[in-house]
Amino acid sequence: MQPDPFHRDCGSRKVLDRIGDRWSVLIVLTLADGDRRYGELAGRIDGISQKMLTQTLRGLERDGIVTRTVRASVPPRVDYALTDLGRSLVDLVAGLEVWATTHLAEVEAARARYDAR
Amino acid sequence: MQPDPFHRDCGSRKVLDRIGDRWSVLIVLTLADGDRRYGELAGRIDGISQKMLTQTLRGLERDGIVTRTVRASVPPRVDYALTDLGRSLVDLVAGLEVWATTHLAEVEAARARYDAR
Repeated sequence: MQPDPFHRDCGSRKVLDRIGDRWSVLIVLTLADGDRRYGELAGRIDGISQKMLTQTLRGLERDGIVTRTVRASVPPRVDYALTDLGRSLVDLVAGLEVWATTHLAEVEAARARYDAR
Repeated sequence: MQPDPFHRDCGSRKVLDRIGDRWSVLIVLTLADGDRRYGELAGRIDGISQKMLTQTLRGLERDGIVTRTVRASVPPRVDYALTDLGRSLVDLVAGLEVWATTHLAEVEAARARYDAR
């Protein structure tokens, strides 16, 4: 059977959730510029809670999009990087970011019109 | 100020949530083929609850991505269509769908490896 997210039991629906998630998008975009430590990701993605960052990174690692490498140092250093699979996502999530920033004013104008009805 | 979803207060973060949402993706893809009635959308998107479909359509309408047109007939007929803004999203969400279906097997293999560690 071909994967088809229009079917309720198809796993591709959960993959859509993963790749469309705002935190996944921001993490993949940050790692597109190079490997980052946990604290660097936390600093770049303003307002993400530690719990959400940890949880999203774990999900991305589990899905094969990100690798987590613990380096033996004092204190131990944890680096995150994109896998090949993760790199194949970069253009796509960059497209989402560009759309969101380019069309923000239009979306906000539409909302104001809708709310004034 | 340029919109930047890396900042916690930037509205582009909420736009990211909208366009990356699985139900938005499936609705926009369905409407890319032509206008649809409510019941046609419900039939095409297997497993979506009436509440979730109504709520997502309302959000898409509010954000200027979808129009809702009530036609005077018995019973009244409600048609949904993409706006120009919505059409500018089609290639992007089609890219998400293609990625999710193309890489599903890879993601599932990665999960199995992760869970077996």
